[in-house]
Amino acid sequence: MQLGIIGLGKMGYNLSQNLLDNKHEVVAFDVNQEAVKTISDLGATGASSVADLVSKLSSPKVVWVMVPAGPITENVLVELKELLNENDIVIDGGNSNYKESLRRAAELKEAGIHFLDVGTSGGMEGARNGSCTMIGGNKEAFATVEQIFKDICVENGYLYAGESGSGHYLKMVHNGIEYGMMQAIAEGFEVLEKSPFDYDYEKVARVWNNGSVIRSWLMELTENAFSKDAKLEGIRGVMQSSGEGKWTVEEALDLQTATPVIALSLMMRYRSLEDDTFTGKVVAALRNEFGGHSVVKK
Amino acid sequence: MQLGIIGLGKMGYNLSQNLLDNKHEVVAFDVNQEAVKTISDLGATGASSVADLVSKLSSPKVVWVMVPAGPITENVLVELKELLNENDIVIDGGNSNYKESLRRAAELKEAGIHFLDVGTSGGMEGARNGSCTMIGGNKEAFATVEQIFKDICVENGYLYAGESGSGHYLKMVHNGIEYGMMQAIAEGFEVLEKSPFDYDYEKVARVWNNGSVIRSWLMELTENAFSKDAKLEGIRGVMQSSGEGKWTVEEALDLQTATPVIALSLMMRYRSLEDDTFTGKVVAALRNEFGGHSVVKK
Amino acid sequence: MQLGIIGLGKMGYNLSQNLLDNKHEVVAFDVNQEAVKTISDLGATGASSVADLVSKLSSPKVVWVMVPAGPITENVLVELKELLNENDIVIDGGNSNYKESLRRAAELKEAGIHFLDVGTSGGMEGARNGSCTMIGGNKEAFATVEQIFKDICVENGYLYAGESGSGHYLKMVHNGIEYGMMQAIAEGFEVLEKSPFDYDYEKVARVWNNGSVIRSWLMELTENAFSKDAKLEGIRGVMQSSGEGKWTVEEALDLQTATPVIALSLMMRYRSLEDDTFTGKVVAALRNEFGGHSVVKK
Amino acid sequence: MQLGIIGLGKMGYNLSQNLLDNKHEVVAFDVNQEAVKTISDLGATGASSVADLVSKLSSPKVVWVMVPAGPITENVLVELKELLNENDIVIDGGNSNYKESLRRAAELKEAGIHFLDVGTSGGMEGARNGSCTMIGGNKEAFATVEQIFKDICVENGYLYAGESGSGHYLKMVHNGIEYGMMQAIAEGFEVLEKSPFDYDYEKVARVWNNGSVIRSWLMELTENAFSKDAKLEGIRGVMQSSGEGKWTVEEALDLQTATPVIALSLMMRYRSLEDDTFTGKVVAALRNEFGGHSVVKK
Repeated sequence: MQLGIIGLGKMGYNLSQNLLDNKHEVVAFDVNQEAVKTISDLGATGASSVADLVSKLSSPKVVWVMVPAGPITENVLVELKELLNENDIVIDGGNSNYKESLRRAAELKEAGIHFLDVGTSGGMEGARNGSCTMIGGNKEAFATVEQIFKDICVENGYLYAGESGSGHYLKMVHNGIEYGMMQAIAEGFEVLEKSPFDYDYEKVARVWNNGSVIRSWLMELTENAFSKDAKLEGIRGVMQSSGEGKWTVEEALDLQTATPVIALSLMMRYRSLEDDTFTGKVVAALRNEFGGHSVVKK
Repeated sequence: MQLGIIGLGKMGYNLSQNLLDNKHEVVAFDVNQEAVKTISDLGATGASSVADLVSKLSSPKVVWVMVPAGPITENVLVELKELLNENDIVIDGGNSNYKESLRRAAELKEAGIHFLDVGTSGGMEGARNGSCTMIGGNKEAFATVEQIFKDICVENGYLYAGESGSGHYLKMVHNGIEYGMMQAIAEGFEVLEKSPFDYDYEKVARVWNNGSVIRSWLMELTENAFSKDAKLEGIRGVMQSSGEGKWTVEEALDLQTATPVIALSLMMRYRSLEDDTFTGKVVAALRNEFGGHSVVKK
Repeated sequence: MQLGIIGLGKMGYNLSQNLLDNKHEVVAFDVNQEAVKTISDLGATGASSVADLVSKLSSPKVVWVMVPAGPITENVLVELKELLNENDIVIDGGNSNYKESLRRAAELKEAGIHFLDVGTSGGMEGARNGSCTMIGGNKEAFATVEQIFKDICVENGYLYAGESGSGHYLKMVHNGIEYGMMQAIAEGFEVLEKSPFDYDYEKVARVWNNGSVIRSWLMELTENAFSKDAKLEGIRGVMQSSGEGKWTVEEALDLQTATPVIALSLMMRYRSLEDDTFTGKVVAALRNEFGGHSVVKK
Repeated sequence: MQLGIIGLGKMGYNLSQNLLDNKHEVVAFDVNQEAVKTISDLGATGASSVADLVSKLSSPKVVWVMVPAGPITENVLVELKELLNENDIVIDGGNSNYKESLRRAAELKEAGIHFLDVGTSGGMEGARNGSCTMIGGNKEAFATVEQIFKDICVENGYLYAGESGSGHYLKMVHNGIEYGMMQAIAEGFEVLEKSPFDYDYEKVARVWNNGSVIRSWLMELTENAFSKDAKLEGIRGVMQSSGEGKWTVEEALDLQTATPVIALSLMMRYRSLEDDTFTGKVVAALRNEFGGHSVVKK
């Protein structure tokens, strides 16, 4: 079917290729017109603006927004609300906060526009070759575009999760779990690194990927990473984070739920952003105060 | 090749079947002679005692011990030390603490007996159809029996990890990671359970198993579990643990390593064993003392 | 000096007594007119409504609001904004979120009214006999009422912390620390409770209050609590929480700060609210899936 | 009364002064004979060896050992077992592991020697002017030397805790609580440090020490520390640890007790010992693998 794609970054570009492979008619726009040109060469119809993109779609129009969550997504959706009409469908495939999606669904509904909040997992490779999507919003609107998800996802790789917000909520929690699994794997390798034994981490990850209880895609990626840099000597252990892990913890707090593993996974990421901590200084100063323990001077 | 199996419990029995399928000659013993009879019916040679088992093997004799870690393993190994001779090989496939394995390897070496410490993962199904094993000990002894591992493990599913202790150490850390991954998954579902949405957990687990970053065998098991009991209403959230998670944390402490996720996974298991806590009572009493906050009377 | 007190609950009533003892002229209002009558008997001037209270004050009017944080505080402040005039001073002595205080300070400023956000610690006894207060807001407004703080606080027990919001922010963090200290103390006693020794907890708390590094008011309260119920057998370990601990964690997340101890103190409180957890069910179900470990049936 | 002191380090020297102030007759030995000379100038009787010290005591001899826990304590106690006789009393005032104390008490008992395991808190200042002690061991032996504890401790500052091991056990848990309280305080100040406000930390600590719920000796030490270095700019946040916090966590694990706050306090100390972590590298590498997120190169 025909659909517009707004945003041709890492995810949007791969998604567009995936859609073209599956014989969908893609009208594509990005502020970076180079990316538009490149995808046009692969068969997409290029658009010079959001308005241009909308004008090139036939009704009911379907627009997939794949731009960074936050203000950029907001601006695109505000613009789309002006340009679209009743029964048109907007899909937000980015990592938006589900509370924003709830609000946006309500706002677009005022204009009769359907809004689907779609969490996407699987990374760039998934976007290109088959991803996993979790979809929230109006069930009939979903049915209208279901074929898209059938085509771009791996088998059994999409789920209509329920009413508005439920798609991004599920993606949020998915990422919370991901943080915990990654930290668990990483802690394990840190123990190995400090252990009295001399392990080959790539081989360890490989054997764990074959028959063990902890075999997983993340462990496969671990194997890949070690195959490129056996001891990860080339990089620093700085753990950035986007918003979903934090949102999961905030949601857990709002629900009065104990999620220590997800919370600590996040906090250890924050800790990794710093060379030194004020917490550490206070504790060191206190040890010096009561026990005369020496401190490390700067 | 010919080998003896001591222990025909959940793991040992499945392993024996696996070995028989792969045309190995199995001499089997268990204190439960019923189990010996059953496996004999499938082609194994039954033994009536550890000594009987040893007497039925030709030199160099290979004995795989698959009994509960701790005193039972200890007793079997002590007995084997008396019965075996130079160049015989003992394999401990149980969840023994690597420090015990280091000691046992040294003790058996006194008698010229080789000891391989083998961590086994993959559960009962793995033992039956293809498991994952991590092997520590003398490299030549390993080479002698490598064909066994080739046959009973999935492809790429065994690793000679290095000197004595390194096999059980790797299994220990594997289980530490497993604890963290399980807790991460479980926390995610708890957030979903308390969320404002009404998810079908089996479907959620299924979609996460198809194309998502967190796809994994544990998530497949989660899908299975929800397929049998959609809300897990039939069971209580009591999380038992065997020793390896605890050993991983103790090892981390000895190595001065921060493993908050593995440690908390373990501690939440301990917490789940109790209906009420003294910690909670003290905090509740303190809140009452300073703020006059009401306490919940028993 | 003269001031109005709105709210005669546990904190407000004790505070009013404290103010009367210190020869301040108190005009008091509470929706519970019984409380108004009781405090009037002690020398306060009773008021029948917020408007009545305001009318009984001379300019510049000073009103201390001591009602539950949230909607009730909001309603009182909205009403006061209508009733008060330029240079009047409103003090919020409750546990309001500092972000609310920032907003309220700005809104009241529109009408020329000064707003002081005052965190109060020390419990009911402190309110009665000498508390600890942390004050944010306009410095001149603070100077106008400083004598009040001098009188109702213990020596060195009040601090002008800085601009609007800084008082409630400091109280928020104070409570975060409090959560951590309480949990630390409580965990220690839980270890003692499960230890092989038979300790007298009241005596333990007492010795720790005399000369040890961990001597503290909280440990004194622990001693008091054990003096009343030696093993806390009469209460359940249900740990309620008001908002400040949660806000501290949320603030830490916003600041990308690792505060594992405060976060876990909060999460263990949440955990204590439940008899059973979905997390536990999922982990138990998974153990059953891969290892055939038995689950506890309901 | 007369007693021998072995060990004139920070704690032992201050303790000896304290004993001399209280008119006890001190026979002192240290491998550092300078320290022996200095304390002799203050009235103690110097000894040139452990044997010399023992020979200068009259029966029943009382020897207080105040040397570093571990091998040094072990060596002294082994030597004392040879030198002492039935009904003599050995006091271990160091931070020994309670399991060692249990063993030592049993070993010394073979020779009829009483062993008291004494946990000491209050730092150097406490040792000098009045400390807090927790005493385990034979009750009659304790009674024989009770006057010593009465004199060197603050009022109500000593506790006969029970049978052998219970003194060092109590000190161990005391330190676990201490770790948690310190980390809680430190995390609070880290939030303040990153907050939008500009606090004077010395003043904050002071106001919290006057009337607040979290007033404590540790907060007084915090105030002291900030009075010397307002932002702790001169030191690094490296948090060393001696053994007791680790032992508390290990004991909690053995007791299957959840002590997340004490465990995390310890693990954050370990984390502070490292500039970079392997955990961080693995997580960063994984993020790069699945999302193409950039890593920080070395």
